[in-house]
Amino acid sequence: MDVMYVVSSGRYCRPNLFLLLLIILHSGPHTVAGVWPLPQVFTSSAERYSLNSQAFYFVYGRQSAAQQGCSVLDAAFNRYFPLIFPDYTSGNGVLPFSDSKPFSVEISVDHDDCESYPNEDSSERYNLSVSVGRASLNAETVWGALRALETFSQLVYQDDFGSYFVNKTEIEDFPRFQFRGILLDTSRHYLPVRTILKTLDAMAYSKFNVFHWHIVDDPSFPYQSSTFPDLSSKGAFHPMTHIYTQSDVRRVISYARLLGIRVLPEFDSPGHTKSWGKGQSNLLTPCYKGNIPSGVFGPVNPALPSTYQFMARLFKEVSSVFPDTYIHLGGDEVDFSCWRSNPDVKAFMSKMGFGADFTKLEAYYIENMVNITSALNKTSIVWQDVFDYHERIPKDTVLHIWKGTPAKYKEELSSITKAGMRVLLAAPWYINHISYGQDWRNYYTVQPQDFPGTEEQKKLVIGGEVCMWGEYVDATNLTPRLWPRASAAAERLWSDEKQTSSVGKAFPRLQDFRCKLLRRGIQAEPLYVGHCKHEYQGI
Amino acid sequence: MDVMYVVSSGRYCRPNLFLLLLIILHSGPHTVAGVWPLPQVFTSSAERYSLNSQAFYFVYGRQSAAQQGCSVLDAAFNRYFPLIFPDYTSGNGVLPFSDSKPFSVEISVDHDDCESYPNEDSSERYNLSVSVGRASLNAETVWGALRALETFSQLVYQDDFGSYFVNKTEIEDFPRFQFRGILLDTSRHYLPVRTILKTLDAMAYSKFNVFHWHIVDDPSFPYQSSTFPDLSSKGAFHPMTHIYTQSDVRRVISYARLLGIRVLPEFDSPGHTKSWGKGQSNLLTPCYKGNIPSGVFGPVNPALPSTYQFMARLFKEVSSVFPDTYIHLGGDEVDFSCWRSNPDVKAFMSKMGFGADFTKLEAYYIENMVNITSALNKTSIVWQDVFDYHERIPKDTVLHIWKGTPAKYKEELSSITKAGMRVLLAAPWYINHISYGQDWRNYYTVQPQDFPGTEEQKKLVIGGEVCMWGEYVDATNLTPRLWPRASAAAERLWSDEKQTSSVGKAFPRLQDFRCKLLRRGIQAEPLYVGHCKHEYQGI
Repeated sequence: MDVMYVVSSGRYCRPNLFLLLLIILHSGPHTVAGVWPLPQVFTSSAERYSLNSQAFYFVYGRQSAAQQGCSVLDAAFNRYFPLIFPDYTSGNGVLPFSDSKPFSVEISVDHDDCESYPNEDSSERYNLSVSVGRASLNAETVWGALRALETFSQLVYQDDFGSYFVNKTEIEDFPRFQFRGILLDTSRHYLPVRTILKTLDAMAYSKFNVFHWHIVDDPSFPYQSSTFPDLSSKGAFHPMTHIYTQSDVRRVISYARLLGIRVLPEFDSPGHTKSWGKGQSNLLTPCYKGNIPSGVFGPVNPALPSTYQFMARLFKEVSSVFPDTYIHLGGDEVDFSCWRSNPDVKAFMSKMGFGADFTKLEAYYIENMVNITSALNKTSIVWQDVFDYHERIPKDTVLHIWKGTPAKYKEELSSITKAGMRVLLAAPWYINHISYGQDWRNYYTVQPQDFPGTEEQKKLVIGGEVCMWGEYVDATNLTPRLWPRASAAAERLWSDEKQTSSVGKAFPRLQDFRCKLLRRGIQAEPLYVGHCKHEYQGI
Repeated sequence: MDVMYVVSSGRYCRPNLFLLLLIILHSGPHTVAGVWPLPQVFTSSAERYSLNSQAFYFVYGRQSAAQQGCSVLDAAFNRYFPLIFPDYTSGNGVLPFSDSKPFSVEISVDHDDCESYPNEDSSERYNLSVSVGRASLNAETVWGALRALETFSQLVYQDDFGSYFVNKTEIEDFPRFQFRGILLDTSRHYLPVRTILKTLDAMAYSKFNVFHWHIVDDPSFPYQSSTFPDLSSKGAFHPMTHIYTQSDVRRVISYARLLGIRVLPEFDSPGHTKSWGKGQSNLLTPCYKGNIPSGVFGPVNPALPSTYQFMARLFKEVSSVFPDTYIHLGGDEVDFSCWRSNPDVKAFMSKMGFGADFTKLEAYYIENMVNITSALNKTSIVWQDVFDYHERIPKDTVLHIWKGTPAKYKEELSSITKAGMRVLLAAPWYINHISYGQDWRNYYTVQPQDFPGTEEQKKLVIGGEVCMWGEYVDATNLTPRLWPRASAAAERLWSDEKQTSSVGKAFPRLQDFRCKLLRRGIQAEPLYVGHCKHEYQGI
């Protein structure tokens, strides 16, 4: 079956008629394969074009708002060339009189957002059209163009003789959810910067767009604060080798930007802060045994004004270091026993009229924190616990669901959205939990909008997040535990739910995608018995 | 506390008095740490000696039966030098006028078995004594000397400034079990040769001594037979890139030999042979649907004389390629339904007087196979299934237990040893089965000799095996799934059970050992929250 070539004239093309045409063509005999996550509208034909690395060009469309010199796209062209031609090495196989016809990939974007950061409103929509001698990639933003390049790179394949081909193709694509994140935990184990960068690469291959950096927690504080350097020099596993310097953090953020990935920092408090106390005295609550301090410390002390002065200074720094408009404040799993033991905290409770209800104290603490971030023009994300004990939080705060079975998190989705709050779903994608067999199927079959509620409520689900907590994970096993299992969630978050309802149909496509990841040097583990043409070459 | 230096005069030293002395000293305040698996008798003192890579020598004891030119030990000296001095690179830090005192590691063995292969009777016993300026390593065989070198390498440590030290130490050591194996499955996924070699390295660090190579199975036949080349050219995942050539196999065997590791090949039949049928017609049983062949094939056809002619030729080749005196014949999980459907098989059953009892047919098949290997002077190992349906197998056959819960495998241990047969335990160490958390504890707490039976029966347990079946494992995730989880089993198989009964005491030692593995480039995953001074540098 063949498809007509749609002239997009270098501009972003409205979907209406075009979409209709493709839906009609879509019913043809060609299997939809080769791209993960599955594009929204995808048609290809058996007509194929030969590609040759010696006669292959990325060009900017004449009417594109971004032109040569656009940092994001120039870097992407450099990155995608070897991904499209994996056998290519600059020295070999130069055939100056190659008989291949030239092939141009022409990129056009509506906005020159080359120097900006991707944000919550960034469009990632794109059109992609492959025909004789050329591919047209059109998008509203450079971030959409990045997604288009990723898709194009996945369309190119090699025959048994190593020749490259791409089939005649029409794609119209956009993400189902705006927020498609992966959480890495660099406190329970330190992850070297290159491991984070490698993960960002792999995230881009699956079209993830948020790196949630759970950077500090109880076990260690690797973030090197310029305002409070003692936090890492005393709270990291090692003050020199197990920290993220300001330069490391900038490197991660700018690398992520070039991949169209936001970096969402989390400085979780008032619980999960043991490591903070090593470098900042009078921050944590001294726990008491009877009338005397036990020597143990609990959560951040919410009764002291100095706590909020410290937090304001720390978050002022964090706000300027991390450009994203969101900051994750944590707020999960606060243990009240230490607060309850402390006479100063109890006196404060009484003064504030909280009685013996420590959830009020916690709510008070979080309110102060949200006010601090609001004053810094940042939107807060907090774990669901905050909603559970305290519904009076600012409406623009995002609630992050991490607890429970499907029945439980659906109930939470329902009640949070009923309160008009936006929500982010992580509970079904705690990918650090491993089990024997094909558990990717569980991640694939999640239905994030299947809960009791109105259409308006469903729209308040801004996306989902794959969480890789670090108890049992470091640079030795992160990559094979993450990939391709996280890719299953990626398709759920990007693609149309109806078109991707079959786990059975997804299986060979995900196997194929996993082989692509191997070919790109990502140590992605196998789904089941079998082989890839190019096995992992690392070890 | 200090220990006396025991003069061993370059000969293997009988344990009697020496052991008594060490047991007395053993009750001192020094923690037994630093060596995994734990030596049988271990005493160290706070007295430490500085080591310098520029003044460090391996020497053969004057009375040693092996001298320079001994392939096994010469290679070991080359291997252990950079393991003892991990910062050393040949070009750097040469201090010709270093003020360090020289330190010699003097190796003496009783037998010049340098060119032999390790076998089931090889002694791995050794004594190790570290004192001022020297270490004496004495063993009966070169294989014992290898274990001594591994232990010595684990005794050396660096201070915060990078200087190397070793403490005054006395060790008397020998393995609890003779057979300490790891099974790799190269049929469900192909493992590159370098992945196998890397695994052999790591096995030596944990004192494993048998590589059970489950080389072929249903999904693929990667062994390139010189007698039947079609088996791999038609039965491998790919006839060129996913095979083990004769040269690959020789390389694995000779590499393993230098590490004191036996290579036990398994060519499992009559089940688990789907891939065999692709390159060898008339080998598998044609299954019938009613009166006509269904096109599907079942287990090896036991009714045809040609089957045994083929097997005799194949195993003749295998026997000469693999020098070990053991061959694993498989014999597990035979599905009778195909045999039952086949009229020729049924006619054979009737002719042999087997009635409708297909276990008799299976027993007949295995008897023939065992006779083939016996004629080749090889001892057979078979999976427990063979015992379960057929107790009349030659007494020197080893039964391999793979099924069930502790209650079940203990019953099997009891009944097999009651029948006077030797047994190898794998059931509790199916390490491909993963679960969230510290499942190494389960591997550590196995008690292989805790079953109803006499002392004589207990002695028939020749050892244990960690099985890494390949459904979900290939080169991308093999190493972090295997290490350090397999090391837990290694200590159970090497060390004294009473001295290693506490999981709590093992935990920090295993964490420390895992950091050593990282330092040696083994991608061993973490046991829990924490860090190593030198994290994994691979990704």
